[in-house]
Amino acid sequence: MANDEEALELHAENPGKISVEPSVDIEDSDDLELVYTPGVAEPCREISEDKSRAYDYTSKGNMVAVVSDGSAVLGLGDIGPEAAMPVMEGKSNLMKKFGDVDGFPICLESETAGDIVEHVESLEPTFGAINLEDIKAPRCFRVERTLKNSMDIPVFHDDQHGTAIVVSAALQNALDVAGKQLQDVRIAISGAGASGIAVAEFLLELGAENIVPVDSSGILRVDDSNRFKADLAEKTLASYESGGLEDAIDDADVFIGLSAPGIVSEEMVESMSDNPIVFALANPEPEILPDKAKDAGAYITATGRSDFDNQVNNSLAFPGIFRGALDAGVSEISEEMKAAASDAIRDFVEPKRDRIVPETLDQSLALEIADSVQEAAEQPET
Amino acid sequence: MANDEEALELHAENPGKISVEPSVDIEDSDDLELVYTPGVAEPCREISEDKSRAYDYTSKGNMVAVVSDGSAVLGLGDIGPEAAMPVMEGKSNLMKKFGDVDGFPICLESETAGDIVEHVESLEPTFGAINLEDIKAPRCFRVERTLKNSMDIPVFHDDQHGTAIVVSAALQNALDVAGKQLQDVRIAISGAGASGIAVAEFLLELGAENIVPVDSSGILRVDDSNRFKADLAEKTLASYESGGLEDAIDDADVFIGLSAPGIVSEEMVESMSDNPIVFALANPEPEILPDKAKDAGAYITATGRSDFDNQVNNSLAFPGIFRGALDAGVSEISEEMKAAASDAIRDFVEPKRDRIVPETLDQSLALEIADSVQEAAEQPET
Repeated sequence: MANDEEALELHAENPGKISVEPSVDIEDSDDLELVYTPGVAEPCREISEDKSRAYDYTSKGNMVAVVSDGSAVLGLGDIGPEAAMPVMEGKSNLMKKFGDVDGFPICLESETAGDIVEHVESLEPTFGAINLEDIKAPRCFRVERTLKNSMDIPVFHDDQHGTAIVVSAALQNALDVAGKQLQDVRIAISGAGASGIAVAEFLLELGAENIVPVDSSGILRVDDSNRFKADLAEKTLASYESGGLEDAIDDADVFIGLSAPGIVSEEMVESMSDNPIVFALANPEPEILPDKAKDAGAYITATGRSDFDNQVNNSLAFPGIFRGALDAGVSEISEEMKAAASDAIRDFVEPKRDRIVPETLDQSLALEIADSVQEAAEQPET
Repeated sequence: MANDEEALELHAENPGKISVEPSVDIEDSDDLELVYTPGVAEPCREISEDKSRAYDYTSKGNMVAVVSDGSAVLGLGDIGPEAAMPVMEGKSNLMKKFGDVDGFPICLESETAGDIVEHVESLEPTFGAINLEDIKAPRCFRVERTLKNSMDIPVFHDDQHGTAIVVSAALQNALDVAGKQLQDVRIAISGAGASGIAVAEFLLELGAENIVPVDSSGILRVDDSNRFKADLAEKTLASYESGGLEDAIDDADVFIGLSAPGIVSEEMVESMSDNPIVFALANPEPEILPDKAKDAGAYITATGRSDFDNQVNNSLAFPGIFRGALDAGVSEISEEMKAAASDAIRDFVEPKRDRIVPETLDQSLALEIADSVQEAAEQPET
């Protein structure tokens, strides 16, 4: 685990972890005339005649806003936009490193979903895509849905879809190793925030049939006042079952935790089916530590952390997804593109118990994902 | 003059002219843990306890938004936010090159002054200062005034204040060469947009007493329906005089054009006082070409262009001004800081008829300006 002091030092020495750099050097007055006035007038004129030429002559086509209001940051909660910034800057750093995407952090002072929507809409001329991040549920669902309709550029809430893509890839590899099929297994999903709901929805799309979503109040209910939770209950075993986490996990083949530290006991793991798969993804403290889960019979374990096997982390996916979407020039990231990204991650490794996902630092992964996403974007719709 | 084809090529080969680059390289999983999760949590926590630590641990302290709605771009007019982008990107490039400031272009889709205000306010957690740019008058005045009151970071409309700073420096050097005093000379200012009004206001502050502001409708009137023009008329000779450009310029020691191409004739220059100073700053086509002005008796000429002597261009000022303001950690750029910037530009050259301002590409100028601005910021208020 990283040392807090070391992390502070690194951030103090490199505030922001990113910088804006000239990509054209101005050496003489000829350069200045081309980069600035009067030369700059010509691309301005071209774009004013046809807005789409912004993609030819400006940074828009490679520039992704990493947007947050700071209302649901890591395990820290609603810490506000200023305090969320280091996360968005880290993400911007990774986008360039792995995807050659210009990511730029935008932390917004805004109180409501409506505010966020209006501010992000106003940024459309500047950015080629929007990565929403660390916005609390259910606000994030309303923001994403509205922006996907109103904007002509891809809008992608990474906490939902990035997580769903990586978890589904990891899960399918784990199931292959365990010799089980997605449509047959019972999957307990703990946590009904942005990522928990999105993982469940995506696994349903991929063919899972026996999902039991559970949150801190127990197995979700079809009459939940949060309509996103109620909708999910309707589509899953939660429409027939009730009880707590111990009921959801009982006889499950798979546990996926996107919830809270330490809530899974050894007894719960012991109550699972044969060769159980335990993804304890709460960060930085998982629902159960991998060693403890293995002692209780877990066949395959994964966490969000780099100090255990099988790090299931969004950073595997987002640089390649944005690279692919920008290269494809699409106005949204479709379900087919998400599935292609998941497949690319899945196919990147020869799965074993301790290697169900690629290494987070593998430089070639993002390019594989980008190619698959672009290919999916170019398929005629079926 | 730059070739249009060449300018398009350069923009196509380097779309954006800037890029977002990692300032920390991630080489191994230890780095990843510090730059991203879990290490990033510690600076987040620190900032959530004290927002001001954003300046220690994030890019905020060196990040300046170059904001436009694209409503008054160069000589091109209201071409919209997408088409304005190459100008903002050029400016961001220059900020880094000359001032080591991270400038980031934000072109906003927004219809009204109120919209712009709300969107820019929402960006306060992300940026350490705001450079407003190419927003049409009088909208720009309302936007700047409101934001200066509502935001805790410097807000600076470069078309107004950057222009005023550079023009005043150039003018005072020109007056030195011509052996005249600012308070004595008659100054005709053509153009009552953002820059014309700001130049007049700033020269008044510096001690000019005989300014005649004129726009395409003639010498400004105290009953103009635009209250910014009426206010200026009130404070200048326009409260006593009337007529057209030829009346304003008659017997003037100084002509400052921030208006339209070709509107000054040789006869008008001939009607000026002894050793007249002619700043024809309309871009890219000046109010009168320098050679023609000299033939008609102009003693000193200046334009906004690099292909004539005495290029009076905002790029002389803004990188140093923002560098100084950020280093001083101020929440606004005061009149004293603007005057200090003007003096630094003025003092940078030994003035001669063909050298009243520094070379635009002099790398050390911005640092001189920054030092002067910072010093002015640290003076106790008088």
